[in-house]
Amino acid sequence: MDTFEFTHRRQNPLTGKWILVSPHRNNRPWLGATEAVADDSLPAHDASCPLCPSNTRANGEVNPAYAHTHVFKNDFGALIAQDTVPATEDPLFAIETTSGECRVICFSPEHNKTLPELTLGELTAVVTTWQQQYVELASQYKCIQIFENKGAIMGCSQPHPHGQVWAHQHLSTEIATEDAAQLAYFNQHGRSLLADYASRELEAKNRVVFANQHWLVVVPFWAAWPFETLLICLDDVQHFGQLSPAQNQALAEALQVLTIKYDNIFNCSFPYSMGWHSAPTDREQPYWRLHAHFYPPLLRSATVKKHMVGYEMLGESQRDLTAETAATILQAASSVHYKKEKQ
Amino acid sequence: MDTFEFTHRRQNPLTGKWILVSPHRNNRPWLGATEAVADDSLPAHDASCPLCPSNTRANGEVNPAYAHTHVFKNDFGALIAQDTVPATEDPLFAIETTSGECRVICFSPEHNKTLPELTLGELTAVVTTWQQQYVELASQYKCIQIFENKGAIMGCSQPHPHGQVWAHQHLSTEIATEDAAQLAYFNQHGRSLLADYASRELEAKNRVVFANQHWLVVVPFWAAWPFETLLICLDDVQHFGQLSPAQNQALAEALQVLTIKYDNIFNCSFPYSMGWHSAPTDREQPYWRLHAHFYPPLLRSATVKKHMVGYEMLGESQRDLTAETAATILQAASSVHYKKEKQ
Ligand SMILES: O=P(O)(O)O[C@H]1O[C@H](CO)[C@@H](O)[C@H](O)[C@H]1O
Ligand SMILES: O=P(O)(O)O[C@H]1O[C@H](CO)[C@@H](O)[C@H](O)[C@H]1O
Repeated sequence: MDTFEFTHRRQNPLTGKWILVSPHRNNRPWLGATEAVADDSLPAHDASCPLCPSNTRANGEVNPAYAHTHVFKNDFGALIAQDTVPATEDPLFAIETTSGECRVICFSPEHNKTLPELTLGELTAVVTTWQQQYVELASQYKCIQIFENKGAIMGCSQPHPHGQVWAHQHLSTEIATEDAAQLAYFNQHGRSLLADYASRELEAKNRVVFANQHWLVVVPFWAAWPFETLLICLDDVQHFGQLSPAQNQALAEALQVLTIKYDNIFNCSFPYSMGWHSAPTDREQPYWRLHAHFYPPLLRSATVKKHMVGYEMLGESQRDLTAETAATILQAASSVHYKKEKQ
Repeated sequence: MDTFEFTHRRQNPLTGKWILVSPHRNNRPWLGATEAVADDSLPAHDASCPLCPSNTRANGEVNPAYAHTHVFKNDFGALIAQDTVPATEDPLFAIETTSGECRVICFSPEHNKTLPELTLGELTAVVTTWQQQYVELASQYKCIQIFENKGAIMGCSQPHPHGQVWAHQHLSTEIATEDAAQLAYFNQHGRSLLADYASRELEAKNRVVFANQHWLVVVPFWAAWPFETLLICLDDVQHFGQLSPAQNQALAEALQVLTIKYDNIFNCSFPYSMGWHSAPTDREQPYWRLHAHFYPPLLRSATVKKHMVGYEMLGESQRDLTAETAATILQAASSVHYKKEKQ
């Protein structure tokens, strides 16, 4: 079951969605050019950036002279704290109000850095900031969505390294779907879906990109995006609040290796959206396993992305490159950042 | 229930997915600039285009000197006709083979035309070509996905007006989901979900963009993309094979009005992915209603699109502009194409 020469479909057990895989379209060894992309050469501090230390934001607030990370409320957030009214019962016009909040998380004071360029200590500070945010917001909200949009191609117009956290009273569609799938698996098998999956991948090895004592990075069997990965906690951890300092540090290492390998595939700052899926905060969660999804759009070069359009929007996701080939490329990519290798 | 000043969520009854709506971020009257975009001024015939009449394609085949539409097999299709083997039963590594085919449908011999620039007669030829393709492929396959990716932003590198049809033995994830939702509604209410929905929208009027005797164009209550629309057959029709010549012609009119209005929002060739959802060909389908989804990405101008990224991929779709505001803009848009108005 290591190579799949035929057109086939694979199913994502977390969502139930299928993915169409067409390896006959892209079944050759790696042919994509490795283009060196011009350095943007941004300054370490940009006076006009609302995220840089000591700068004044549009609302008049002044950022502190922060040394590692800085979190502030997004004044243009998609969610606001508000009173809610009961939902309608109309099946064709179902609508409900919700309450929540949105925050911005600066990853570093340096305007021109990205996660793969941070030291292990700096990455650990990002991880503990995620944890603090999770714990604080989990006391008020059911669903805490921590994520990062990286690169202009991912709708991120602000190069200063940052992510976001959106917290709200309801479960988002994806979390509700993953919750139901993990619960059903647990009820049937008596074990957590992602724990079983991680064990199987560690045995199979061919899709594993990185593993340490606490974390596994794998190109999931059901990957939709060309270089999609799944970062799974190997310990029985359901949410960010439970991570120990050792698990946090091991996570920083996993993030460092993965994001460096990503940048090294095409020698560019590799764009992606990534984010954390934790158990909802309002229920017993033995069936949950803390994990992060990385959804990077690039396909063949720093400038050629996979378009998830017509067929994908109306039917289901489609890919040419198999998950196994993508994993081979990520395995072969160096763990030393290409910018350092050039020095 | 006409204005929604608060943050809320709406549910798509065809998929069960929720959409987060944040009108407080974009609740003002229309402020977006209407930018005139430079005409690409393509030639009517391009000697290097594999879709133009009488040209030779990469595989040596010569296109006929076609007058209206032309259909050919996509030699690089994601699906191929092949023998299939039984699916695995492993819930974490579910995989199945499938058989299918992919075709390209040229909408016009003229390289520099788009659907909104075709005459009613030319659009009727497109509709009847869709119908012929549907009927032919439905005799062999369960699921016939007709679609168009329009514009480079939608991964379409070939400007010659064309769409595609992918046909396969299995039901795609979206069709399976919509099938289950429509069946459940029918079992509970004894009527078709989209028939009921269309009646309710025709009464409410505020989201209706266009209607004639046989078709309704509406910004669905649960629209995710800024100017998403749903085109619903008002008659009891489950698939393309059932449409009469009168229904085909009325469809050509609806397509013409909708795509002209789209182009007129930002005075540009409005990109989108659109496609048809028909009943699977292997079952009794009283609960199905033939419909098309239009998913256009533009948000504020010919060049500013909505990014469905981090939160949207990990949580659920999010929009600022309400469906009602988008409908008001589409209602106000002229039904005369901006290029004609300039003449
Ligand atoms: O078939 P095309 O036009 O080459 O390709 C386009 O449409 C396909 C079907 O939606 C997608 O899979 C591709 O990513 C997109 O670029
Ligand atoms: O919040 P930002 O960075 O302004 O905006 C970006 O991320 C959001 C959350 O994924 C999306 O809704 C926006 O479309 C995207 O441009």
